[in-house]
Amino acid sequence: MPFRNVKPEIRILAWDDGPFEHRNKGTVPMIGTVYRGGKLLDGILKIDVDIDGTDAEAKIISATNHTKHHGQVRVMMLDGITFGGFNTVNIKNISEKTGVPVIVVLRARPDFKKFKSAMAKLPHAEKRLACVEAAGPVYYVDLGKGRIVFQIAGIERDDAASIIRTSTVLGNVPEPLRAAHLIATGIVRGESIGRA
Amino acid sequence: MPFRNVKPEIRILAWDDGPFEHRNKGTVPMIGTVYRGGKLLDGILKIDVDIDGTDAEAKIISATNHTKHHGQVRVMMLDGITFGGFNTVNIKNISEKTGVPVIVVLRARPDFKKFKSAMAKLPHAEKRLACVEAAGPVYYVDLGKGRIVFQIAGIERDDAASIIRTSTVLGNVPEPLRAAHLIATGIVRGESIGRA
Repeated sequence: MPFRNVKPEIRILAWDDGPFEHRNKGTVPMIGTVYRGGKLLDGILKIDVDIDGTDAEAKIISATNHTKHHGQVRVMMLDGITFGGFNTVNIKNISEKTGVPVIVVLRARPDFKKFKSAMAKLPHAEKRLACVEAAGPVYYVDLGKGRIVFQIAGIERDDAASIIRTSTVLGNVPEPLRAAHLIATGIVRGESIGRA
Repeated sequence: MPFRNVKPEIRILAWDDGPFEHRNKGTVPMIGTVYRGGKLLDGILKIDVDIDGTDAEAKIISATNHTKHHGQVRVMMLDGITFGGFNTVNIKNISEKTGVPVIVVLRARPDFKKFKSAMAKLPHAEKRLACVEAAGPVYYVDLGKGRIVFQIAGIERDDAASIIRTSTVLGNVPEPLRAAHLIATGIVRGESIGRA
């Protein structure tokens, strides 16, 4: 569904994962922030996903569908399509199963060759590679002070670009994702390290 | 030291604790948010404190002195003087040992009689009661849409009132404390519940 216009207080649910020190068996926390545009924090969701596992997609879908904010959230932002290492998500599935369009925000164009060869060594390689295909083409939005790379599901390219512009206040990261990153890092390490 | 004026982007470190279901032995997380006024999240600190213990004060002091934000933070806000049940803090000590003035923000005037009688039953009762004394008199600031009750250490009453006004955007809770509450609740429960 195209957006008629992007309101400055559009509700955004943005997911990022926490760091992990050793690639042993275990989980990492993922934080979902519910923001009004780039302005106000409205809520926090938390899930735990397996390092290099395959449960992130189902857990994001379930948390999104069950939150009290579900009716207000107009768009989801993800920091890439892998969390807790290579726990890969299919953004077409997420968008279809939640009814919420998805924007994947990237710092740089992914090195697809490297990415795919790392995935080929893991269990469920085919499923992971299908996620890379499902994320579709890579687009760019120019913010004047730099650009943001993005991929989309369930939303038009121009609408996604406008939502990214509306919600980016500091540096080259939309505020909801910047906050999700600070929180996910802070709860693992005791102190957050910014990426903006 | 009096504040010459309160800048809209004054750096505030605000602490709140997460909920706990049962008053058994254990810890609760406390989240410190570093905010620019009521506007932007700059960082997250996390500590764990004992339920009904006595370690919150020392841990708040240590986390505040060791964060990379210490040089920028101009004032601390606390959601009351007890965390994780009755883990009571002395705000005079906190202010003196961190060099950061403290504003305790309350929803209502504390019921000192009830408060003191609950503390009298716990170990280290004298130390806890000294914290109640150290928090000093209760002041009020009128926000038009309601009032906030507060106590202070290391800061003038009028300066504290002006910082509360500057940093309150929604409801009757300064934004840095509102965010700390949402995050601390969200990481314990999986979803946050607002108090604004």
